[in-house]
Amino acid sequence: MKIITSAKEMQQTASDLKKQGKIIGFVPTMGFLHEGHLSLVNKSVSESDITVMSIFVNPLQFGPGEDFETYPRDMQRDQLLAEEVGVDILFTPDVTELYPVEPSVKVQAVKRTEVLCGASRPGHFDGVVTVLSILFNLVKPDKSFFGQKDAQQAAVVEGLVKSLHFPIEIIPVQTVREDDGLAKSSRNVYLSDEERQEAPVIYQSLKSSADIYLSQGIEPAIEHFQKQIAAISGEIDYVDILSYPELQEPAPEDHRLIIAAAVKFKQARLIDNVIFSTKEEI
Amino acid sequence: MKIITSAKEMQQTASDLKKQGKIIGFVPTMGFLHEGHLSLVNKSVSESDITVMSIFVNPLQFGPGEDFETYPRDMQRDQLLAEEVGVDILFTPDVTELYPVEPSVKVQAVKRTEVLCGASRPGHFDGVVTVLSILFNLVKPDKSFFGQKDAQQAAVVEGLVKSLHFPIEIIPVQTVREDDGLAKSSRNVYLSDEERQEAPVIYQSLKSSADIYLSQGIEPAIEHFQKQIAAISGEIDYVDILSYPELQEPAPEDHRLIIAAAVKFKQARLIDNVIFSTKEEI
Repeated sequence: MKIITSAKEMQQTASDLKKQGKIIGFVPTMGFLHEGHLSLVNKSVSESDITVMSIFVNPLQFGPGEDFETYPRDMQRDQLLAEEVGVDILFTPDVTELYPVEPSVKVQAVKRTEVLCGASRPGHFDGVVTVLSILFNLVKPDKSFFGQKDAQQAAVVEGLVKSLHFPIEIIPVQTVREDDGLAKSSRNVYLSDEERQEAPVIYQSLKSSADIYLSQGIEPAIEHFQKQIAAISGEIDYVDILSYPELQEPAPEDHRLIIAAAVKFKQARLIDNVIFSTKEEI
Repeated sequence: MKIITSAKEMQQTASDLKKQGKIIGFVPTMGFLHEGHLSLVNKSVSESDITVMSIFVNPLQFGPGEDFETYPRDMQRDQLLAEEVGVDILFTPDVTELYPVEPSVKVQAVKRTEVLCGASRPGHFDGVVTVLSILFNLVKPDKSFFGQKDAQQAAVVEGLVKSLHFPIEIIPVQTVREDDGLAKSSRNVYLSDEERQEAPVIYQSLKSSADIYLSQGIEPAIEHFQKQIAAISGEIDYVDILSYPELQEPAPEDHRLIIAAAVKFKQARLIDNVIFSTKEEI
């Protein structure tokens, strides 16, 4: 595995690979890798000639008071894991490498952002699409892999690529879960033992609320979720049922929906979602 | 000369050229070509293997009440001129080709925009950097050529490329002028005969104001320009002296300055500028 820290070198390497006709798969991450990330790499390795993973904790996508400083980092362990799972190039620029001067342009996400995580994190997705535009220009991927756990992010990134015509296929990958259903996340380490025991309730309740939506409609479904979370120590930041990937209030003609929630524990805010269909499966 | 109207085909063609190691030079235009554009093509032909010119009147960079509908168009003549001067690929997408859906992201120019043309055209440069991001993703140029007449645009585009790490060299090209000094522009056709006779005063006054700045400072320089334009039928939209390319109020340590102005005639708003140095030439 090659480790690259320089933006220029990454861009030159990608350019050379493209000239050789190689298919580049890209897995952008903020590091502190877990099985969720590794499942993205597995998918990339099986679909690309060269898999590039980036590790970059992007200050632009953290708001004031969010956990940029304390976001968990462990580069040494990440390098071992990345190599083990088959990453060919690990791109680990520092902040001055991607933002050498104060940017004179920013990419702004103007749709799919006012709901779910976007509602409580103003500017977050602007930071995401700005850093991804930079990374896409440096890594020149043919395909880029995103976890379905961050379903809103996947929807926003698909909008970025379509709107600015990046020649990149965005491939969503199913959420990887613990045995008890809890979605894998770098932030799970911040849960106390008690919270860790309660956290699987999020996914269980999302699934049962989706069932209730199908039989009884939106209000009972949301109420069910609220009641389930009220019984544990976490607090609901949001829960909503929307069309996917448009992320709008479901209309009768929308058949692909998402129920998504964020739940705050003492030191960690966890997100999860279930994408489901209103059509009978045959 | 190959004519391409499809975004997909342009992107595929560019991708194939890059794989062959070709250097792509790019001249983005809004058409109605004049010698200014052709000088950009000449420069590109001499510095690239393949020269791509785009013709696209971009609705995003016109404000309400501006001349999007009436902006002059003459595709047949443009094609002949482009072929004659050595364009290899002419890319002429229509609006739905570049914006097939309402964009879910926009690129926003956050610096170098609040002065000169930017001050009186809110959102103009957002439209410019958004369409250029799209065109850069489709044409994949190694170099892109911009006229120094739109000096603010050249400065903003340089900021775009640096900030988002597009692997493109931005090459400014000297303004082409009529014999009497008037900068070539698509909008010159809108001048009445009388206005056409008066218009060279703009460039003459910019030059003499720059000289006055060097000996007497900013106020007499601006006053001189105002007085000169007051004597003709045009009206000053703005005139300013700034550092270049930062476009900030000149500080003692700034030695590269621009005096830039926009002058409104009945049917046309003309811009021009002079870039000059505060250092003695040796």
